[in-house]
Amino acid sequence: MDAVPQSGRSLGHQERMRIRSGTFVGSTAGLAPGNVQANLVILPAELANDFLRFAQANPKPCPVLAVSEHGDPSLPTLGRDIDLRTDMPRYRVWRHGELVEEPTDITHLWRDNLVSFAIGCSFSFEAALIEAGLEMRHITTGRTVPMFRTSIQCAPASVFRGPLVVSMRPRRPADAIRAVQITSRFPSVHGAPVHLGLPERIGIRDIAMPDYGDAVPVEPDELPVFWACGVTPQAAIAAARLEFCITHAPGSMLITDLRNAALAAS
Amino acid sequence: MDAVPQSGRSLGHQERMRIRSGTFVGSTAGLAPGNVQANLVILPAELANDFLRFAQANPKPCPVLAVSEHGDPSLPTLGRDIDLRTDMPRYRVWRHGELVEEPTDITHLWRDNLVSFAIGCSFSFEAALIEAGLEMRHITTGRTVPMFRTSIQCAPASVFRGPLVVSMRPRRPADAIRAVQITSRFPSVHGAPVHLGLPERIGIRDIAMPDYGDAVPVEPDELPVFWACGVTPQAAIAAARLEFCITHAPGSMLITDLRNAALAAS
Repeated sequence: MDAVPQSGRSLGHQERMRIRSGTFVGSTAGLAPGNVQANLVILPAELANDFLRFAQANPKPCPVLAVSEHGDPSLPTLGRDIDLRTDMPRYRVWRHGELVEEPTDITHLWRDNLVSFAIGCSFSFEAALIEAGLEMRHITTGRTVPMFRTSIQCAPASVFRGPLVVSMRPRRPADAIRAVQITSRFPSVHGAPVHLGLPERIGIRDIAMPDYGDAVPVEPDELPVFWACGVTPQAAIAAARLEFCITHAPGSMLITDLRNAALAAS
Repeated sequence: MDAVPQSGRSLGHQERMRIRSGTFVGSTAGLAPGNVQANLVILPAELANDFLRFAQANPKPCPVLAVSEHGDPSLPTLGRDIDLRTDMPRYRVWRHGELVEEPTDITHLWRDNLVSFAIGCSFSFEAALIEAGLEMRHITTGRTVPMFRTSIQCAPASVFRGPLVVSMRPRRPADAIRAVQITSRFPSVHGAPVHLGLPERIGIRDIAMPDYGDAVPVEPDELPVFWACGVTPQAAIAAARLEFCITHAPGSMLITDLRNAALAAS
């Protein structure tokens, strides 16, 4: 991965400071355009190695952008002066698999044994597709991308296991081919699609009934195209009913100093 | 394109000498494995510029590997000591759009004003797909790849015009995605597919009734994947009813000294 830009204050840094100050608590979609945004998972150290093994074995749904040192709330490879306790608009705190709190700051929950994972998010490859002139149906219709639990099981690692969750974007065939080409260049943010055209073959019975997010129309001249989704690790964590963990709240991502273009494989 | 290997006698050269001597008149499929094979089109000079414009405007079906000097039967960028009059097992001679002769040598027909085009062929990308462990249904079933005339029209240039012809290879969705990735690296031999999954949208009414070649089974868990095909320029040439031209006979290709791997985009 390319180094973090060092010169001056990046737009990502500015947005993090605004969020840290508590003056912004909404969705990060559209903030610091062109900057990589990331999913966050914070776990006690005794679970971190197993989670990292799970991510390593399932790189398409769980592309790890950075892992922190024990108890260190910074991620220096992703941005200057990041403080993971304050720099995301909203968090989710889980105890024994139950959502117990959605705070805007987790300083009061911080422990010296916590390990943080930043995981690539589809915002980056969507930016590349939009740049290439391809429509994002869920964006043009003002919805959340439709997501489905599939019959494909992730490779398990200790307590972490569960189905691959995919997001769906409809495309005409020639554009589906183009989308494969474009997103193949972004392996650290889910990469190429995992499936297209035959949803029933991966256990999706009704394309109009997503398990998460909103349904979007698929026209007769379009194929549904499926990408591995960052909800996969969240679902695996929820199913593991961990004694304690923290994640970002949906849509409330870590804004990094990295540029999306810097993630592209050559 | 990489330079022709200079050291020693390439396997391609050996096979051309065998063909030149008249001791081999069969299909070139499987000869000099890993070497690029090419379609051949030989036209009078007054038509060559228009044909080159046609190819330039339609690079997916007509990827030009090399164009000869007027009246020169060699193609030095494709191989050492190539003589296009003798080095292919069989030719087709066309007069006013009619096939009039299928000789094994065209020395008697050579003229000083002929221009030769070597055009990339799917053998190269098929080799890359096989290398990646993907099945070629037409090869495993001992047939010719099925080809279809589509409702997509080529960009015309002077007398050269006509439909895009495509070849079809069935693939399970995940393998179709993999095939897009692999063949995208080979733009000079048709490159990425042009369509997949919805044949009726490109004017193909019955996948079991190809216009050229043989039908192959498409299983319920597979999508038909379509690549632009080198029959496209041949069909355009036939439709133009040229006073005179020469092409290779089907399956009787020019074996070059280039390696398939050398065609891969980085």
